[in-house]
Amino acid sequence: MLVQQYKDMLNRKSVIRQLSEFATERGKEIGYENVFDYSLGNPSVPTPKEFTEALIEMLKQDDPMTLHGYSPSLGITSVRETIADSLNRRFGMHYKKEHIFMTSGAAGAIAHAIRCIAGAGDEILTFAPFFPEYNPYVNLSGVELKIVPANTEDFQINFEEFEKMLSPKAAAVLINTPNNPSGIVYSTETIKRLAEVLRKKSKEYGHEIYLISDEPYREIVFEGVDAPFVSQFYENTFLCYSFSKSLSLPGERIGYIAVNPDCKDAETFVNMCGQISRGIGHNCPPSMIQLGVAKVIDMTADLSVYETNMNLLYEELIRLGFQCVKPGGTFYIFPKALEEDAVLFCEKAKKYDLILVPADTFGCPGYFRMAYCIDTDKVKRSIEALRRFVESEYGR
Amino acid sequence: MLVQQYKDMLNRKSVIRQLSEFATERGKEIGYENVFDYSLGNPSVPTPKEFTEALIEMLKQDDPMTLHGYSPSLGITSVRETIADSLNRRFGMHYKKEHIFMTSGAAGAIAHAIRCIAGAGDEILTFAPFFPEYNPYVNLSGVELKIVPANTEDFQINFEEFEKMLSPKAAAVLINTPNNPSGIVYSTETIKRLAEVLRKKSKEYGHEIYLISDEPYREIVFEGVDAPFVSQFYENTFLCYSFSKSLSLPGERIGYIAVNPDCKDAETFVNMCGQISRGIGHNCPPSMIQLGVAKVIDMTADLSVYETNMNLLYEELIRLGFQCVKPGGTFYIFPKALEEDAVLFCEKAKKYDLILVPADTFGCPGYFRMAYCIDTDKVKRSIEALRRFVESEYGR
Repeated sequence: MLVQQYKDMLNRKSVIRQLSEFATERGKEIGYENVFDYSLGNPSVPTPKEFTEALIEMLKQDDPMTLHGYSPSLGITSVRETIADSLNRRFGMHYKKEHIFMTSGAAGAIAHAIRCIAGAGDEILTFAPFFPEYNPYVNLSGVELKIVPANTEDFQINFEEFEKMLSPKAAAVLINTPNNPSGIVYSTETIKRLAEVLRKKSKEYGHEIYLISDEPYREIVFEGVDAPFVSQFYENTFLCYSFSKSLSLPGERIGYIAVNPDCKDAETFVNMCGQISRGIGHNCPPSMIQLGVAKVIDMTADLSVYETNMNLLYEELIRLGFQCVKPGGTFYIFPKALEEDAVLFCEKAKKYDLILVPADTFGCPGYFRMAYCIDTDKVKRSIEALRRFVESEYGR
Repeated sequence: MLVQQYKDMLNRKSVIRQLSEFATERGKEIGYENVFDYSLGNPSVPTPKEFTEALIEMLKQDDPMTLHGYSPSLGITSVRETIADSLNRRFGMHYKKEHIFMTSGAAGAIAHAIRCIAGAGDEILTFAPFFPEYNPYVNLSGVELKIVPANTEDFQINFEEFEKMLSPKAAAVLINTPNNPSGIVYSTETIKRLAEVLRKKSKEYGHEIYLISDEPYREIVFEGVDAPFVSQFYENTFLCYSFSKSLSLPGERIGYIAVNPDCKDAETFVNMCGQISRGIGHNCPPSMIQLGVAKVIDMTADLSVYETNMNLLYEELIRLGFQCVKPGGTFYIFPKALEEDAVLFCEKAKKYDLILVPADTFGCPGYFRMAYCIDTDKVKRSIEALRRFVESEYGR
C-alpha cells in the first residue's frame, strides 16, 4: 500500500539532512564559518549577472500576460528550439524542438523518463556509488531499482557484475556522469562499452533497454578530462538535464529531457511526457524561468572554484594517506575512510567540526563524500582540521 | 499497463484544445480580434504591478544564492507562515506553517492530496459538471474517479445521487467551488450538508472520507454571493489552492495545500507530501516565485472585468431564451444548448465565429461552457454574433 510506504519513509531521516542540521546547530555555537560543512551539494557561486539582467528586462518590458502565461504542455516552443540548437551546436547532435520536453529540474525529467519506458514488474539498473534519491524516484513509480556494485578501482562501470545482473526485466539503465558522489566522469571507452552491452542485450531480449542519462553536472568537468556526450553513443538515450548546477539555480526547478532523435518513437515519447505530467501534477516548469534560461543558454556561472577546491582537497587527502580517485568533475570527492566503518569515521570527524557524509546510502560502504561547493578560504582552513583529525584519531 | 495508457491518451485530443486551435487558425484569416473565442480559461488581466515590482526588487537586492537557492522540501518556511497567517486573518482559521505545503499550482496540490489519502482500489467522488483534468489526476494515480450526476436545477450538489454512490471504497470527495465549468459557488447550506453526509458515512464505514477542495477561483466571487470558506465546515479537508487566477500567474505554477489543523494527523500529511514529491519528481515550486507571491499575499489582479463580462453575457443569454443559472464566480457561464446535442450546437456556432465548448467532457451533455476571460469590448461585439447565430439556426 503506497500510502503506508510514504508514512514509513517519514521515519527514515536522510543522513545528509541530519548532518546538515548538525552543522547548522554547531554553527550557532562556534559561528558557521568555523564549521567545515561538506554535507550539502548546493552550488556556491552566484548565477551569471546576465541571467538576473534578462529576468529584470523581461519583467520591465514584456507583457505580463505573455510572460506569466500558461506554457504549452511540452514547454515553451521557442525555449525548446533554443535548447535543441544549443545541443546541436555544442555536441554535434541533430535534435529538433520535437525531441525536447521541459521539466522541473532533473528530478522531474527522471520521473517522466521512467514512466515513458517502464512499469510494474520492470527493473532499472544503476551503478554504485549512486545518488540515493534514485531509490524513491524509481521505486515509488512502481519499478524496481537494482544497484550494480561499484568498481572501486576507478569508479568506472563494473561491467562484470552489470552483465550478471541484467535480465529480460531490464527496461532501462540509469547513469549519472559526472557522478554524484564519486566525482568521476565516465570515459568514452566506458560509454562505448555500455552502449555495446545495451545493444547486444536489447537484441537478445527482443526489447529495447533504454539509457536514462542524468547529467546535472555536465558543465562541471575539470581540465583535460575525457567527458563524452553520452547521447552520441547510444540511440535509445533519454538525456535528463538540470540548470541547477550550471546556472546556480537549484531552487528554480528548471531542466529538460532530450530524447535522442535516433531513438525509435522519440517524438512519441516527448508527447507521452505531456500526458504523464497530467497524472503526476507536474504541468511545466515556470514560464518566466524557461524564458530566462533560454536567454543565457550557452552560459554558466563561474564554475572554476570547484576545480580549485578539488585540487586543494585531493592533494591533501593523498598526502594524508587516503585512498582516493581524482575527480574529473562535479563538486564531490569520494575517499575511502581510514577505518572499515565509514559511519564511525564520519562520526569521529564531527569532533573536529568536519562534516563528512558516509557513503553507505550511496551504495558504497567504507567510503565518504565531501561536497566542496564552499568558499576556497574555508577549504584551506579545513585542511588544518583534517590533519588534526587524522593524526589524533588514526596516528598519521 | 501504464505505459500503454499514456500512449492511448495521445490519440484522444482535448476538445478544448481543438477548439482553441480552430480559433487561432480562424484568427489568421479574419483577425483574431474578430474571433469570439470563449474556449480557454486563461486569465485576461495582468498580474498586479506590485508583484512585478517585488520580483525586480528581489532580483536587484537579494543575494542570488539565497533567492535562487533550494527551497526546503515542504516549501520556504517564511512563505508557509505568510500563507497560514493570511488564511487565519481572512477566514478565521488557525493554520500554522506546519499545515501548509507549497506546490506547483493546484494540479500539483491535488496530485499530492490524492496520494496522501488514497491508493489502488479506492474511489474518489466528484460532482458533475466537473473539470475534465480530474480524470487523469485521479485515474493515473491508480485511484478511480466516480462522477455524481449534475443537479441541473441550480448546479449545487445532487445529494440523492451522491448518497447512492458513496460506498466504503470512498477515500475522498473532490469539489471545485467556485466551479469550473458551471460558475456556481456552493452555498453554506450545501457545504454544511456535505460535511454532515461525510461525517455520517465516515462513522458508518469506520474510516475517514476526506474532502479535497480545489479552490483556484476562490477570489473570483461576484457581488452578494454566499461563498463559504469550505475548510471551516469540515475538519478533514485538504484545501488545494493556486495563485494562477487570483494573481494572473498561470504559467508560474504556484499554489499550496492547506490541511485543516483539526484534521487528525494534519502535520503528518504535510510531511508525507514531502515524501510523495520525491516519487513524482515534483520537488517544490520555484523559490523566487514562492517569495514573490508571499510579498503580495492579500492582493489580487483587478478581477472586476469578469463580473462585468458575466452580467453582459447572462442578460443576453436570458433575453435570447437560454436556460442558464447565473454564475456566482469564476469566469465561466454554463447555459443549456438550444438543441439536445451540444456538440452539434457548438459546431454550428463556429460559422458565426463563436467558439463555445460542449460540456460532454465536463460530465454534463446538452450544456456548453463560455470562458469569458476576454476583453469586455469583445464580449460586447460577440453579442451581435450570438443573436445572428440563434436567429438563423433556431429561429428565435
